[in-house]
Amino acid sequence: MRMYDVIEKKRDGLELTSEEIQFFINGYTNGDIPDYQVSSLLMAIYFQDMTKDERANLTQAMVESGDQIDLSAISGIKVDKHSTGGVGDTTTLILAPLVASLGVPVAKMSGRGLGHTGGTIDKLEAVPGFHVEITNDQFIELVNKNKVAVIGQSGNLTPADKKLYSLRDVTATVNSIPLIASSIMSKKIASGADAIVLDVKTGAGAFMKELDDARDLAEAMVAIGNKVGRNTMAVISDMSQPLGNAIGNALEVKEAIDTLQGKGPDDLTELCLTLGSQMVVLASKASNIEEARIKLRENLLNGKAFDHFKLFLESQGGDVRVADHPETLPQAAYKIELPARTSGTVSEIIADDIGTAAMLLGAGRATKESQIDLAVGIVLHKKVGDAVGVGESLLTIHANQDSVDDVKDKLYASITISEHVTEAPTLIYDTITK
Amino acid sequence: MRMYDVIEKKRDGLELTSEEIQFFINGYTNGDIPDYQVSSLLMAIYFQDMTKDERANLTQAMVESGDQIDLSAISGIKVDKHSTGGVGDTTTLILAPLVASLGVPVAKMSGRGLGHTGGTIDKLEAVPGFHVEITNDQFIELVNKNKVAVIGQSGNLTPADKKLYSLRDVTATVNSIPLIASSIMSKKIASGADAIVLDVKTGAGAFMKELDDARDLAEAMVAIGNKVGRNTMAVISDMSQPLGNAIGNALEVKEAIDTLQGKGPDDLTELCLTLGSQMVVLASKASNIEEARIKLRENLLNGKAFDHFKLFLESQGGDVRVADHPETLPQAAYKIELPARTSGTVSEIIADDIGTAAMLLGAGRATKESQIDLAVGIVLHKKVGDAVGVGESLLTIHANQDSVDDVKDKLYASITISEHVTEAPTLIYDTITK
Repeated sequence: MRMYDVIEKKRDGLELTSEEIQFFINGYTNGDIPDYQVSSLLMAIYFQDMTKDERANLTQAMVESGDQIDLSAISGIKVDKHSTGGVGDTTTLILAPLVASLGVPVAKMSGRGLGHTGGTIDKLEAVPGFHVEITNDQFIELVNKNKVAVIGQSGNLTPADKKLYSLRDVTATVNSIPLIASSIMSKKIASGADAIVLDVKTGAGAFMKELDDARDLAEAMVAIGNKVGRNTMAVISDMSQPLGNAIGNALEVKEAIDTLQGKGPDDLTELCLTLGSQMVVLASKASNIEEARIKLRENLLNGKAFDHFKLFLESQGGDVRVADHPETLPQAAYKIELPARTSGTVSEIIADDIGTAAMLLGAGRATKESQIDLAVGIVLHKKVGDAVGVGESLLTIHANQDSVDDVKDKLYASITISEHVTEAPTLIYDTITK
Repeated sequence: MRMYDVIEKKRDGLELTSEEIQFFINGYTNGDIPDYQVSSLLMAIYFQDMTKDERANLTQAMVESGDQIDLSAISGIKVDKHSTGGVGDTTTLILAPLVASLGVPVAKMSGRGLGHTGGTIDKLEAVPGFHVEITNDQFIELVNKNKVAVIGQSGNLTPADKKLYSLRDVTATVNSIPLIASSIMSKKIASGADAIVLDVKTGAGAFMKELDDARDLAEAMVAIGNKVGRNTMAVISDMSQPLGNAIGNALEVKEAIDTLQGKGPDDLTELCLTLGSQMVVLASKASNIEEARIKLRENLLNGKAFDHFKLFLESQGGDVRVADHPETLPQAAYKIELPARTSGTVSEIIADDIGTAAMLLGAGRATKESQIDLAVGIVLHKKVGDAVGVGESLLTIHANQDSVDDVKDKLYASITISEHVTEAPTLIYDTITK
């Protein structure tokens, strides 16, 4: 087999066989096939797309290019959740203990990553003593005992995907549905989940700005998951404005604590119930979505979800007093209000720009080496559709620097107040099950 | 400027500016831009094509990537001829002295190359003593004196094209009209010609198998040439069967000698007159094609073209006695006939396969290191449309090996004899002037 023929075949719009895809992925991973042939194949894929079989075979080949996590020692159906990423997305912190409180095993492998705020592990480390440096055996024991645990990423998962992603990043081939879908799915599948719930974001703050593109990606990922034998569902949700009110690490932990007690922002709560019901159904802990939602809501209100959160923190060394006293979380030195300059209805809060403002405050990493300030961030008091009077605070800036003029300018520019009444945006656009 | 943005722009179907194309060509030539970014741009060009301006700018940037031959010391309009390549194509050997005999300056830079038979220099070296190792000054003096000279390729011409071609060859991006056209034209333009006549071949033995593709390529090259200020014309000619009767180096020299005396095969003579008239008109040595053709035919019949060939050989050290006694050219040890197995009309002679048979005999180079046997080859006695009886010789194999069974099998398989009358194929399909 020659890589040249594989490129030519895809260039001409023909379907690559499973063997051809394995040949290319294995050859690229072990260094036999050079970057310049792979980048030309990637561009051909960008133009010619891939069939459902090709996408599944590509995903499977990337999974098999490295280590695969074996979660078979955990009893029950392990369900993983993945979000395509957005601003102020605290769902993992809420969903993990919430669905675990209904007996769904959540074996979460998480990272730090780059972005507007830190990753799930950064946020959890705002709780004094909490740590993810546990052995695989401890991890499995904890999930079996408590139904929830988080461990840092380890092992050599999907090296083919890492290499491909680096190459796509410099050859203008990131934005291709089959390549995005196989990249995300290969990581989830290699992480060992039996079933997967996907939260595909759309809007200004999302990777997929357009609803149609988000739907294409969701359908592609669900098709891949089901083809390789992992029960997969997807929700398409709004990321035109930030989700919830808090953007920042400790601020989001506090918001998660509120939500787990049934006192969270409406949109965040609603999204957690939607994603959570899917997870509960996939784990066979409810016979349908409605039943799952009722059970989840009950546990938010009766304290069981909150208790499970405390159990989860405690079992990984966290100081559970934080849960009852979130004011003991890291606090920023300055709290600065952003008063509305005009009255009217908030018609736009550009999620991306709010995220960038949070990063300017120090909440996120620009490079792998950046230090995160866990205390800083933004708390919104108004969301799209809310009425606001002149001088009323739109949001509070939590800063550890006294001059935040540039951040304020950015925030004013990203929030529009209209004379006309504006509706809150749709939160859940669609649910994709096959 | 970033290469990433150049790739993305072309990927999205936008027109690259002259500056962007220069940036990419210069960066690639000097090693600043890596192969893997260029191959992804090449694949994007394959799918999105290039506008006429982009093609001209790409060609010009490749010309400027290296040395350019200065022919300004040669008086008159220097016209170059280029063929996209075929089997048994001896036109250069004939055209150079033929148009020179009308005062058109032919300053030919030629190579050895790979293929079914050798390049123009290999063929000329079948004449004892002939050599192309002359200085640039001698070359220019010879062209001014005799109107014709041939020199081996020297200098660092179009290094960008060389690098790009190697990359295209392994990334399935050879077959792209804008890339083929700019590659050919950049070499011709860097070689210093004022005007260019292109012979674009079509049919089984040509790079462009389909007439439409050949026409696209011809139009693309003519447009580039005229846009960068070189008067350019193209002829689209048949290469379904070999051109002329001889395939092999010394055999083609003998055929050229015959043709220069007005005794050559009809198709070869006709193509030389067609291409030659274009060259004469471009050089302003005739006011129109008809007048040029009459003058050229005259010189084939009155001995002037043949005398000019001898002058050309002699002035570069060649033994002119060969011209009058072609039997003194290198001769093969064995001459083996190929008798027809059935009677009828020859309906197909697959040019490519005849060329491969000649190469098996040793007439061409498979790799740069291969040694060429100047004596061996094939002489056709029948062409498409000719009647043939059982046992009549279809062709003579000139071999230096006694067993040629594999070559015979190949030749039988590439020649079809039909019960039905078949017309000779069209020789000249079209002339492209803008």
